[in-house]
Amino acid sequence: MALLDADRLFPLDPGARTLARELHGAVATAPIVSPHGHTDPRWFAENAPFPDPARLFVTPDHYLFRMLHSQGVPLDRLGVPRADGGPTETDGRAIWRLFADHYHLFRGTPSRLWLDHAFQEVFGIDQPLGPATADAIYDRIADCLARPDYRPRALFERFGIEVLATTEGPLDDLRWHARIRDSGWSGRVITTYRPDAVTDPDFEGFTQNIEAFCALAGEDPARYDGYLDAHRARRAFFRGFGATATDHGHPSAATADLPSAEAEALYGKVRSGRADAAEREAFRAQMLTEMARLSLEDGLVMQIHPGAFRNHSAPVLARHGRDKGYDIPTRTDYVRALKPLLDAVGEEPGLTVILFTLDETAYARELAPLAGVYPCLRLGPPWWFHDSFEGMTRFRQSATETAGFYNTVGFNDDTRAFCSIPARHDVARRVDAAFLATLVRSGRLTGNEAHEVIHDLAHRLARKAYRL
Amino acid sequence: MALLDADRLFPLDPGARTLARELHGAVATAPIVSPHGHTDPRWFAENAPFPDPARLFVTPDHYLFRMLHSQGVPLDRLGVPRADGGPTETDGRAIWRLFADHYHLFRGTPSRLWLDHAFQEVFGIDQPLGPATADAIYDRIADCLARPDYRPRALFERFGIEVLATTEGPLDDLRWHARIRDSGWSGRVITTYRPDAVTDPDFEGFTQNIEAFCALAGEDPARYDGYLDAHRARRAFFRGFGATATDHGHPSAATADLPSAEAEALYGKVRSGRADAAEREAFRAQMLTEMARLSLEDGLVMQIHPGAFRNHSAPVLARHGRDKGYDIPTRTDYVRALKPLLDAVGEEPGLTVILFTLDETAYARELAPLAGVYPCLRLGPPWWFHDSFEGMTRFRQSATETAGFYNTVGFNDDTRAFCSIPARHDVARRVDAAFLATLVRSGRLTGNEAHEVIHDLAHRLARKAYRL
Amino acid sequence: MALLDADRLFPLDPGARTLARELHGAVATAPIVSPHGHTDPRWFAENAPFPDPARLFVTPDHYLFRMLHSQGVPLDRLGVPRADGGPTETDGRAIWRLFADHYHLFRGTPSRLWLDHAFQEVFGIDQPLGPATADAIYDRIADCLARPDYRPRALFERFGIEVLATTEGPLDDLRWHARIRDSGWSGRVITTYRPDAVTDPDFEGFTQNIEAFCALAGEDPARYDGYLDAHRARRAFFRGFGATATDHGHPSAATADLPSAEAEALYGKVRSGRADAAEREAFRAQMLTEMARLSLEDGLVMQIHPGAFRNHSAPVLARHGRDKGYDIPTRTDYVRALKPLLDAVGEEPGLTVILFTLDETAYARELAPLAGVYPCLRLGPPWWFHDSFEGMTRFRQSATETAGFYNTVGFNDDTRAFCSIPARHDVARRVDAAFLATLVRSGRLTGNEAHEVIHDLAHRLARKAYRL
Repeated sequence: MALLDADRLFPLDPGARTLARELHGAVATAPIVSPHGHTDPRWFAENAPFPDPARLFVTPDHYLFRMLHSQGVPLDRLGVPRADGGPTETDGRAIWRLFADHYHLFRGTPSRLWLDHAFQEVFGIDQPLGPATADAIYDRIADCLARPDYRPRALFERFGIEVLATTEGPLDDLRWHARIRDSGWSGRVITTYRPDAVTDPDFEGFTQNIEAFCALAGEDPARYDGYLDAHRARRAFFRGFGATATDHGHPSAATADLPSAEAEALYGKVRSGRADAAEREAFRAQMLTEMARLSLEDGLVMQIHPGAFRNHSAPVLARHGRDKGYDIPTRTDYVRALKPLLDAVGEEPGLTVILFTLDETAYARELAPLAGVYPCLRLGPPWWFHDSFEGMTRFRQSATETAGFYNTVGFNDDTRAFCSIPARHDVARRVDAAFLATLVRSGRLTGNEAHEVIHDLAHRLARKAYRL
Repeated sequence: MALLDADRLFPLDPGARTLARELHGAVATAPIVSPHGHTDPRWFAENAPFPDPARLFVTPDHYLFRMLHSQGVPLDRLGVPRADGGPTETDGRAIWRLFADHYHLFRGTPSRLWLDHAFQEVFGIDQPLGPATADAIYDRIADCLARPDYRPRALFERFGIEVLATTEGPLDDLRWHARIRDSGWSGRVITTYRPDAVTDPDFEGFTQNIEAFCALAGEDPARYDGYLDAHRARRAFFRGFGATATDHGHPSAATADLPSAEAEALYGKVRSGRADAAEREAFRAQMLTEMARLSLEDGLVMQIHPGAFRNHSAPVLARHGRDKGYDIPTRTDYVRALKPLLDAVGEEPGLTVILFTLDETAYARELAPLAGVYPCLRLGPPWWFHDSFEGMTRFRQSATETAGFYNTVGFNDDTRAFCSIPARHDVARRVDAAFLATLVRSGRLTGNEAHEVIHDLAHRLARKAYRL
Repeated sequence: MALLDADRLFPLDPGARTLARELHGAVATAPIVSPHGHTDPRWFAENAPFPDPARLFVTPDHYLFRMLHSQGVPLDRLGVPRADGGPTETDGRAIWRLFADHYHLFRGTPSRLWLDHAFQEVFGIDQPLGPATADAIYDRIADCLARPDYRPRALFERFGIEVLATTEGPLDDLRWHARIRDSGWSGRVITTYRPDAVTDPDFEGFTQNIEAFCALAGEDPARYDGYLDAHRARRAFFRGFGATATDHGHPSAATADLPSAEAEALYGKVRSGRADAAEREAFRAQMLTEMARLSLEDGLVMQIHPGAFRNHSAPVLARHGRDKGYDIPTRTDYVRALKPLLDAVGEEPGLTVILFTLDETAYARELAPLAGVYPCLRLGPPWWFHDSFEGMTRFRQSATETAGFYNTVGFNDDTRAFCSIPARHDVARRVDAAFLATLVRSGRLTGNEAHEVIHDLAHRLARKAYRL
């Protein structure tokens, strides 16, 4: 018995299915290019065994614990840490059983596909997870994790990862990246510069972050120039650990291009901690344009991930802290928001800005028309809640006719769930194979073209867009 | 000849179609659980024959007369009453002929499917309605309506309705529900508490409604506490007639959680009739949170139906009054709007809030992410204009991957068109069968799971969510 | 070898495909009714040969040059004129080669389908365009263009165009239309009244336009009445050249119905050039209602095309001027925006207002519900970026269930690319055939009905809605 259908996600029509199978087959074992994600570089630095199955799969994955919580399971019982350090469940097997009891909640979700893929392909499991199989599967995974071939580097190699980007804050010393580099291991793990902690005045500890940040670079935090030079210095430092990109997770896509005196004054205001909401938003907006200018200098590709309302529940934030599955997408405007940045540098050769969205209505209305004309713009893949069969299908159906394939950048797995990386890339490749096969069978593309495009989507566009 | 295709709404792919037919077959005759609708309890209390075909099908159904009006048919000619009591068409046959002349307008609409279903399955008609068949079909329906087996209770039983909820305002004496209860008839017809008349300051007669409402409960309308206690009393009264739910039809999803002194002052202001638009909106917002708190006390499930711009045409409102097909959906925000209520009570065990929308863009962006994490939230089925094949399909495709099936609540027929109830549930069951069959055939669900889920969607989830 | 698949755009399911082929076949050679577009009447007046292939296909088509520019090709190299009159590429063959080098960018786009259709059906080309075939295809097209049967009138006849509407501004003397009329040629080329230059205070030269406009009509520009009478006169003049419609391309769908003294004062303000942004928007809004009132007088059908953010890039606007592919759709509200106009004249018999959108979220939420009840409203076809297989499919799937087919108006090609007209109508007919075949095969429509509706969608509804 198999957990996975060999033809999963392919079109139902037999002719299209045959072609999709063929297109998928051509890239099924192609290298994984993972230019954006959140795995922990320490894993590859230390190469220690992963902990127990619950701590590998459940506790760190907000996709999973949010779904159980939505049906009334307290986060404590899933081992999600409390902000006050108070006790939560620590028995991996108890967490796993609770998870198995609720596994039916994932019917029809991408989590289910990713988990079954990891269970079958990584751990050789062929029984569906449920109350009756929970213990056996727990034991099986635990046994595997104790073996050398389940250590992080071994899995990295087994997964066929050509390059894996992690994401670090601007204050990070990149010690784990240094350790990886110094270890002589051949795996390519690179960092990404994510400066939100010093560009978003609403970030925890913003004022102190600025001090520390400028100190790291030997710059005077009192001067706006010094602050920008600190970015230059830190970006260079990150480039030294392979970074080819920056990432910006702002609540909106707002950009600004203020006269320098105004920008400087605004910096002073936010640094003082007395800026109001509009000024804090203006600073974030200004910083995106500054970052674009720095990208013109140093060649880092810019990624903009706007539109999440973070930590929506006040009581959950108080009890468990940030990033507990309570980030909710909001409507996001790009057309007016991006104009200042685009007027400033949007026609400059050499700039690449990759746009993401949590608001699918922007695909056909705003993002594809923008990316279909501005030379610097590219469309990132469907993100977060939209990283799914239906989400990716809607993206291709909505964006391709206006932006084509070549203004998109392939797939991001965007994950901290290491074992799901092959599953996620496989889903993306299958969706693209299905989409291309449908185009061919409905006379919108030739078979030869589809065979070329599937390679573009599976790995080539990611390498090119991210300069890997 | 048949009006209905036995395989209607099933996937075109033969394998998926066979499976969809099988899944639908498993629930085709399952009991109808109808937890939200607008049928008239008087029908079941009096059990009198329905009037003529035009008054059964056309005159009360805004789906139908709005379409004819969109092509220039004056509402008067369809017997739609005038606000000034002036004459409109009263000849049922004349209205029916006019309707038949325009029946082609419904091609491709759900109304057409529902009507043909009622014609064939309820009245045994096998000829398509049109100018040539109008009189014969009119006569056939009229003949049936005169027979005892076409009286309301007989149809209720024939339709296999397990429970039917009606909707009543807070001033209603529930006399027809009392009559049903006292009649000894076994049909389960329950009420729903819809307090808009005393929670929405823009409701006609709001100030007087408050007086009457508090008087009914023996409470002092001058006191906010008294007003809230009146809700307590009326909710208890409604629970006495089977109510398990409340319903709230506000223009937006705004909620508020004001300090009690502010809430009290706001109550005084709106009761005085001098509140401005922002204050009236704030009061509606505050009342949703108050209702949620009362639900924590008494266990009534809360339904929120936001987003309709009511009575859009001033001249039609003046001539024909409210609810004449001129309610138009608007963009609706949930993320910011619901935060005050959710911060107040969103993590409380025992609360259920069912969210509806007329803005489909919220499915994947806001509603599924919210329902996929908050333990109190559930997603209501596609509503009103979206209660259709394409509407339901988009809902499943947009919401399932993030919220799963178990944060949804099955189907609502939401209708005042009694004869359409079996048709509407059948459409929903077919769409779900088609969706599940597609998941199975594309490797996203097992066949065994689909056989379980189809029962969940057809009746189990409705019973559970509505506590029936 | 053929560039086009004979079954392109038809459903994959064999049964549905057979029926779609049959439905398409019934209208494949039906006359082309083109009630809205941007071809140049001078072509048909002078009937001179078209210039070289690059100037026919590439240089004037913003769909094409925007895509090449999005991948870094400077507009100058494509021969796009500069605002300062400076040099750009003039060698047609060089432009064509550059275009051919980038032809793969159009994979999956409607441009590709339209181009291949024109290449094969108009120019008899059977090799795909690319670097290797660029010169041969250039020569082939150039040879054809030199022949009499490739002159504008010959192509018009060969394309089976029954009527073709162009679009002219209010100051246009319609000299080319006069020349066509006086030539005795039987082709029906009519004009459309597009008064934006004198109704939109943000239009270039607005103040001077008003002077010239009133002068043309012998009216006093200082008087609001005179200004409105000038519209009456110019509309009558346009009707003399066949106009049956007006067209309005405003940034939003805002309408207003101000008391006449206020409207007059507003006119004075905008005419003075001192109106602020809100006043300029209010004037546009007021003018839509005034135009609707004039339509009640003279019977011209009104078209409203809102929602484009024009000339998004400041540097490109400065270098190349307007209309260079930098118009980007924005979110558009219709429900509140149209209420003033609809309250004023929305129930008047004899008025037709055709609504377009660049915001697809409005189809199911706002536009279909509005058009499904207001007798004056009709839905225009998917426009601009949405004039595509997926765009049209989404339109039918989103609008039909609420508005039906008969509140839509058939297809607009909306193009200045003359050779693409047959291709565009063919795509629309194929999409509609596919949609109808799918309805029939899923039991939502009978085959007989589909055979009737395909003619409605292909030509009848356009004739009726546009009063042709």
